Amino acid sequence: MEPSSSGAAPGGVSVSAVLPAGGSGERLGCPTPKQFCAVQGRPLVSYAVRAMERISWISDIIVVVSPENIETMKTIIEKYGHKRVTVVEGGITRHRSIFNGLKVFADNEFSSHLVQKPEVVIIHDAVRPFVEEDIVSKVVMAAKEHGAAGAIRPLVSTVIASAADGCLDHSLERARYRASEMPQAFLFDIIYEAYLQCTDYDLDYGTECLHLALKYCKTNAKLVEGTADLWKVTYKRDLYAAESIIKDNLSQQVCVITNVKESLAQVGFLLRESLKSQIKVEAISISLSKNDSSLQNIISGQCYNFVCVNDKMWAIQETQEVVDMLEKSKIPVLYPVVLILVHLDISEDNSFSVGMEDLTTIKKFARETKKKNILVYGLLIQYK
Amino acid sequence: MEPSSSGAAPGGVSVSAVLPAGGSGERLGCPTPKQFCAVQGRPLVSYAVRAMERISWISDIIVVVSPENIETMKTIIEKYGHKRVTVVEGGITRHRSIFNGLKVFADNEFSSHLVQKPEVVIIHDAVRPFVEEDIVSKVVMAAKEHGAAGAIRPLVSTVIASAADGCLDHSLERARYRASEMPQAFLFDIIYEAYLQCTDYDLDYGTECLHLALKYCKTNAKLVEGTADLWKVTYKRDLYAAESIIKDNLSQQVCVITNVKESLAQVGFLLRESLKSQIKVEAISISLSKNDSSLQNIISGQCYNFVCVNDKMWAIQETQEVVDMLEKSKIPVLYPVVLILVHLDISEDNSFSVGMEDLTTIKKFARETKKKNILVYGLLIQYK
Repeated sequence: MEPSSSGAAPGGVSVSAVLPAGGSGERLGCPTPKQFCAVQGRPLVSYAVRAMERISWISDIIVVVSPENIETMKTIIEKYGHKRVTVVEGGITRHRSIFNGLKVFADNEFSSHLVQKPEVVIIHDAVRPFVEEDIVSKVVMAAKEHGAAGAIRPLVSTVIASAADGCLDHSLERARYRASEMPQAFLFDIIYEAYLQCTDYDLDYGTECLHLALKYCKTNAKLVEGTADLWKVTYKRDLYAAESIIKDNLSQQVCVITNVKESLAQVGFLLRESLKSQIKVEAISISLSKNDSSLQNIISGQCYNFVCVNDKMWAIQETQEVVDMLEKSKIPVLYPVVLILVHLDISEDNSFSVGMEDLTTIKKFARETKKKNILVYGLLIQYK
Repeated sequence: MEPSSSGAAPGGVSVSAVLPAGGSGERLGCPTPKQFCAVQGRPLVSYAVRAMERISWISDIIVVVSPENIETMKTIIEKYGHKRVTVVEGGITRHRSIFNGLKVFADNEFSSHLVQKPEVVIIHDAVRPFVEEDIVSKVVMAAKEHGAAGAIRPLVSTVIASAADGCLDHSLERARYRASEMPQAFLFDIIYEAYLQCTDYDLDYGTECLHLALKYCKTNAKLVEGTADLWKVTYKRDLYAAESIIKDNLSQQVCVITNVKESLAQVGFLLRESLKSQIKVEAISISLSKNDSSLQNIISGQCYNFVCVNDKMWAIQETQEVVDMLEKSKIPVLYPVVLILVHLDISEDNSFSVGMEDLTTIKKFARETKKKNILVYGLLIQYK
């Protein structure tokens, strides 16, 4: 679900990002601003930060929050292990907040923040959790060439203008217009200049950075067709939708792990064959003690579901090694990891060979890993 | 969740509705058109039909579907017991479909459909499942007065116009514009006249009925501020959101039923007191055999969760009567009903007094009611 970043910045420019996260979320109908609402247990803003952070060519990520949420934001960064993030105090409007974020780069010599002014700056919303590297890259490339660029989407509803009496004045021809979405990107000097020249009225009532670049720097932004998942979480129903999308994504890939023993590797292979029409599945046979790099790669490729097949009783030791690797990867900090231990019992003896002691061991193990956000389930299959 | 209709049409006019349901749902990314996608097991279009049908002063509901979906739509109407619905074959565009729907009223003498031309016609989308009587009523009133009216919402994103080179031409000032949503309503003669005069170009490429009323009949529609739940199911995430909203709504009310025995009525009262801070809860003590009207009223008020407290062993007979009433109400056809049987065991004897026979009886009973979409659970509480 989260392909690793390709490493090189598009066009070789230096790139950083500003995420305004100061909104009050009044349209959501709940007291918590929407960027701090939990989705699958994690605040929405953490998803947007993660989406930027995964892109290795983005140097710095400036998150702008209102003064009362600075500590909350710092706690989130600490808890979810976000890197390259600087928290900045916002202004009373969206534009003033973005301007504050940009100032961190511009006033470098006067600032206590150790960040370099980038050639291109991305502006993205804290409440758009699903942005992919591909669209960010396209917008950055277009900004490098045109000075400004932004993602757009087709309009879902017809847009109308109302007259003073509350009646229809005219409808807009839908095909000629687009919804302006995020991410947007700018040559830093252009957007910063636009904010420097910006009137108080525009700082207070404007909503659109592309408009400022046009008005104050005569830069017509390049418009880049975005994907449907760029939408902004605005209403409560959008939180529901985000949660469902995340759950869907988490369950799209599974990794079957066996040790190198041939009979087990064969079971892993068969399991992959029978699952692969429904789900993306990898099967690997590894000698865990050798710190296998193929498993490392799968884990860092953001797989959240593992099936460990073994024929020793619950094989806690092997599983412990998988748990250690997962923990080290920080993956379970972001999402719950599901680990199913399948014990194949091929003993001649037909009776249940699992004693209370084994059950207690696995239960205790699962209780410990649960604290680390790794959910362990045990499955016993007896066959002859 | 579904208050009963007040009965009287706003302004005393005759009102009917047309629901275009011919879309292909290509933006959803699934082969089934979105109006036929299942949400909690039931097609989306059935929710929109139900929302109209609940309003008693809407005489006829015309659902317009593409030729290949006529049988599907008829099956849906049959299965979910929808009333006052006529299925009409749509055209190749949205406007042609709506026009076909309107013709059913206009060509009454030539038509095989037995529907009367209404003074006001509502146009609503099959993919907006949550419309409430209040907004429909406001739009109808406004249409009676102004000739045309439609629900609007604030814009979520800034709207921009692009130039021929794919760059920004200008941004619209967000405060001056609105998203045009549904429902809309019209004096029948106005909207029908507009369609009669409508050019082929507008029938093929226009998206907005309000625009046609303005262009061809010089009628400036009254714009009515709508609620957030009027949004149109467009993308897969909207299906997720709809499902979560429905689940939320279903769990907002519970009815505790006891018989008239004082000790049981007291338990019902205490249960209500302890639940009422979290959920809307009614507690009633009834003699079921007398066909109690208070329970009838609760059932017809669209309650989907019941707790039956009794002190006779599982009291299948009493429960059967509740099940019969539910079945008769057709409520379980629309949503699953949850029925929890609580047996209070106050016998002196401390041992479990539920024999296998009782368990078998309740299991068998639950299996039967499940076929009727009524999910029965048993709970045994022993106390002294």
